Amino acid sequence: MTFPAPLTGVVPPVCTPLTPDREVDVPSLLRLVDHLVDGGVHGLFLLGSTSEAAFLTDRQRRLVVEAVTGHIGGQLPVLAGAIDMTTPRVLEHVTAVTAAGAEAVVVTAPFYTRTHRSEIVHHYRRIAAASPVPVIAYDIPMAVHTKLPADLVLGLAADGVLAGLKDSSGDLGAFREVVTGARAHPGFSVLTGSELIVDASLALGADGCVPGLGNVDPHGYVRLYRLCRAGDRAGARAEQERLCALFGMVRAGDPARMGGGSSALGAFKAALHLRGIIDCPVTAEPQVPLSGEETEKVGKFLAAAGLL
Amino acid sequence: MTFPAPLTGVVPPVCTPLTPDREVDVPSLLRLVDHLVDGGVHGLFLLGSTSEAAFLTDRQRRLVVEAVTGHIGGQLPVLAGAIDMTTPRVLEHVTAVTAAGAEAVVVTAPFYTRTHRSEIVHHYRRIAAASPVPVIAYDIPMAVHTKLPADLVLGLAADGVLAGLKDSSGDLGAFREVVTGARAHPGFSVLTGSELIVDASLALGADGCVPGLGNVDPHGYVRLYRLCRAGDRAGARAEQERLCALFGMVRAGDPARMGGGSSALGAFKAALHLRGIIDCPVTAEPQVPLSGEETEKVGKFLAAAGLL
Amino acid sequence: MTFPAPLTGVVPPVCTPLTPDREVDVPSLLRLVDHLVDGGVHGLFLLGSTSEAAFLTDRQRRLVVEAVTGHIGGQLPVLAGAIDMTTPRVLEHVTAVTAAGAEAVVVTAPFYTRTHRSEIVHHYRRIAAASPVPVIAYDIPMAVHTKLPADLVLGLAADGVLAGLKDSSGDLGAFREVVTGARAHPGFSVLTGSELIVDASLALGADGCVPGLGNVDPHGYVRLYRLCRAGDRAGARAEQERLCALFGMVRAGDPARMGGGSSALGAFKAALHLRGIIDCPVTAEPQVPLSGEETEKVGKFLAAAGLL
Amino acid sequence: MTFPAPLTGVVPPVCTPLTPDREVDVPSLLRLVDHLVDGGVHGLFLLGSTSEAAFLTDRQRRLVVEAVTGHIGGQLPVLAGAIDMTTPRVLEHVTAVTAAGAEAVVVTAPFYTRTHRSEIVHHYRRIAAASPVPVIAYDIPMAVHTKLPADLVLGLAADGVLAGLKDSSGDLGAFREVVTGARAHPGFSVLTGSELIVDASLALGADGCVPGLGNVDPHGYVRLYRLCRAGDRAGARAEQERLCALFGMVRAGDPARMGGGSSALGAFKAALHLRGIIDCPVTAEPQVPLSGEETEKVGKFLAAAGLL
Repeated sequence: MTFPAPLTGVVPPVCTPLTPDREVDVPSLLRLVDHLVDGGVHGLFLLGSTSEAAFLTDRQRRLVVEAVTGHIGGQLPVLAGAIDMTTPRVLEHVTAVTAAGAEAVVVTAPFYTRTHRSEIVHHYRRIAAASPVPVIAYDIPMAVHTKLPADLVLGLAADGVLAGLKDSSGDLGAFREVVTGARAHPGFSVLTGSELIVDASLALGADGCVPGLGNVDPHGYVRLYRLCRAGDRAGARAEQERLCALFGMVRAGDPARMGGGSSALGAFKAALHLRGIIDCPVTAEPQVPLSGEETEKVGKFLAAAGLL
Repeated sequence: MTFPAPLTGVVPPVCTPLTPDREVDVPSLLRLVDHLVDGGVHGLFLLGSTSEAAFLTDRQRRLVVEAVTGHIGGQLPVLAGAIDMTTPRVLEHVTAVTAAGAEAVVVTAPFYTRTHRSEIVHHYRRIAAASPVPVIAYDIPMAVHTKLPADLVLGLAADGVLAGLKDSSGDLGAFREVVTGARAHPGFSVLTGSELIVDASLALGADGCVPGLGNVDPHGYVRLYRLCRAGDRAGARAEQERLCALFGMVRAGDPARMGGGSSALGAFKAALHLRGIIDCPVTAEPQVPLSGEETEKVGKFLAAAGLL
Repeated sequence: MTFPAPLTGVVPPVCTPLTPDREVDVPSLLRLVDHLVDGGVHGLFLLGSTSEAAFLTDRQRRLVVEAVTGHIGGQLPVLAGAIDMTTPRVLEHVTAVTAAGAEAVVVTAPFYTRTHRSEIVHHYRRIAAASPVPVIAYDIPMAVHTKLPADLVLGLAADGVLAGLKDSSGDLGAFREVVTGARAHPGFSVLTGSELIVDASLALGADGCVPGLGNVDPHGYVRLYRLCRAGDRAGARAEQERLCALFGMVRAGDPARMGGGSSALGAFKAALHLRGIIDCPVTAEPQVPLSGEETEKVGKFLAAAGLL
Repeated sequence: MTFPAPLTGVVPPVCTPLTPDREVDVPSLLRLVDHLVDGGVHGLFLLGSTSEAAFLTDRQRRLVVEAVTGHIGGQLPVLAGAIDMTTPRVLEHVTAVTAAGAEAVVVTAPFYTRTHRSEIVHHYRRIAAASPVPVIAYDIPMAVHTKLPADLVLGLAADGVLAGLKDSSGDLGAFREVVTGARAHPGFSVLTGSELIVDASLALGADGCVPGLGNVDPHGYVRLYRLCRAGDRAGARAEQERLCALFGMVRAGDPARMGGGSSALGAFKAALHLRGIIDCPVTAEPQVPLSGEETEKVGKFLAAAGLL
């Protein structure tokens, strides 16, 4: 299967279900993949931030990619994150995830180190030169503390270094600059990672979306995507607003007890557990688990969205 | 050898010399270690930020620790960083570096993920429970975007979770709070990572220092340490000021062309190369190398400090 | 005239033309106001960030409001910023600008001081209690280093404290939360300050926009607003993209020589000068002026947009 | 009286006592000044951050300076902050506070606006050109979100633009660079604003200190200064550690209810009230007041330090 250029549609960042002792729960993972396929998604993004890639060991990362690519058997494009601090470490992940079957890799700017525009450019050039599959830039300043400038992304698109952008910056103005600039580079994929503005992103020309909440309600995001593509703006807005309300679950966890990541990832997994898709809602360490009461809140969001 | 409690003296974060094709240059690394031992240092910290740990692959990290512990043969305590994003990944590094001979591990707060005080506490508890060797907290907000609060560190010291603190925050007021609080926990090591205020840190009660510039001039830092311990404040201040002037080399690189890390690590390695200690001044990717002119600037700093 | 609830349409933050010796150039200011009225705008926002309010003395601020309200004679709603660090200082500005004729005040979170959610709430409550006119919250984290949370804004809307929100955060997801939540509070105005996503903001339910670039091309923004309201999404998108291209002028200034504010405000004023609307393109101190070459770049953006 | 060059010793940033209805309480202010003079301080810094300058109206600021300079009658040098966003507004404050008797002005980098190194330089040049009294740079990145680079400060010292630096950055390494560089500019004053490291700052060559906690215990800071100057390092360290323990009062306020500023300034004023120096511990709006229980905590800190 040739990797789509551009990649379009709904490409959820697949959660990584864990067992109570925090091993990858492969049966639950494959049930989750089936649930996404059943929802009509257009691709799968493994080992992203929502997948808790930052928490998975190298062995676990490999296991996730092998299990999913083996299961999916080429039905859908499978992307995998190669999330690490710098070029040499990212290159190791690129080798590992492509050996395990990933058809594209998703790579952030360097982090932990102080980085510079010229270093980011060199980073992507080196990775693209070595990667056997297309490289998609992952713009996630909340995690890496650097925003990828639109002109940097477009320059690397023009040179054939980058095959696409996954934008989790929340900055729609800058995203638009990439979307409009990328028209000069047919095949370049521009994807939003912002669950709350998929309709707006598609309206201004994005190719698709990578919604973490799409794990919980893939059917909803696929419906939203189709409404947008059909030009039904009122229908799209209503569906998007339903999903925005559902997204409220990410605040189920008490901010006095846990960080925003623990709350959001905990809520997604609690929802998947409550919906009967995964066996265990546990998140990786050192994240704080949701309490029983907080899990009940998640259930109320599901019920209100008609998902329980 | 029992790991010293507290660890005192000069414990440089050892640079990792690379070959032109960016493999670990073991002969240069061992010459550098001999240079440090000759300088009289009291311990070696491998795989820290100055060691470019963020750029080294797992294999390279292991090689560094094995090479140095094998070479040093227990003459000096050897600490190793276990730098990664979250608990499960750090635990893998802890296993690897201790198997390779490290006698203590140095661990930052989680990064990439949004983290919370309770998660940092849990992170250190889990790591200490699993580690066969003492765990030293590494406070480096510039890299991980979280400052370890003094009371958190002291609480973990009281519980026997942490054996020490390596402070690279630059915040001497907060450092002092740990230093004075740690008097209640004999054996807890409080080390400053700030090259420019070693005299001040020792004067207020720190146990030692972890100066990146100590690679270039270990004799100077050891002299400084001895002057401080001998109570010769005027002599200590003069030596510290000489080292501060030498530290100016970290700005040799043009900030229009490279980040601060490229400039600083490039300067340290250029200095080691100019001094004949390592074969090649190359830094890991995607860092930008110093130009010939910038390397000449480094040489002038060495000459002014009487090191060339 | 009763202040509209909600305020809708295009409400440009009016630039403050200065003389070469940096006094308010009232004739130019009134020509600019006429230009905006001719463009069909629906209100005027004086003393915002684009107006260089942070640079104007109290006397100059008063002069701006008096001159414009006197000139406009109630044809259009006139809002004025009351930009200062804390409650007591903001209250003084509220008194001054309302005495000078402003019909609503626009107020940021406290800045310079470390602030807390409860302090922000108290700040707005105190100001609303004292203000003779409606209070609109100004969310501009780039300037004040605090983001107004959506639930805080909606809570103050529910209590009748805030009459609206001017959002310059660039975070459309959070903005949407206010827009949808505000449906429960008829009359509450939700306005975007992001020039590049006015179509998207209106599509998801915003009442209007406050575009700095609207000084340069008010006709364009009014056309965009009308196309959005008429449901002509293709036409709106095309007009928005034309304006996005024009917005490129904000990068005319060399970032090695000046900050982003100097470049953007300098470009807007250069454009107004090139279009013959204001006499002098000078910006307030300590901003760096555009060079001749940089001004030529601005001219090219105008020409490309058909404005010269 | 000629302003001292350099200014040395203990120069507390004088708190501004308020009445219950938040007017300047002049009798309490003058009692506080007498308390400071009695403590042996070497100068007075009015309208700094600890003085709640950010909360005082222009009228209140003027009143503070007039009251204190009238009362002090030239016994001690009186500095005043001219805290505002940009050059033109700062210039107005410079005029006002010098007319009211201030003998030096203390000025931060621009804030609220995005600023650039060249703009900061121009800002200080313009202010120094217009000021009838010496200009001291106020480095307070926590408030203005810009750190004054050491070489910028030294360059302006060399040109006679700046007469000194008040450093509240907490970064002792950078401070040291100014201290050592300033030896080439006799008369330039280098003052630390960090209460917790006065001994360390003086040891490396600072001229004096500007401790907010000096309001509460001026005798302690004067004693500390004298011990440092006398070369009694052990005595100095003991006194400094006593003051560090006392400084713990700044955390009396519950961080769930208030910001760090409310807690710290509330604690200083509560302490002054408990010590009988000021009539009312109220802080300016929108700060959150300490509760009775929190005030009791402050009392315990005073008692432990032998001040009650």
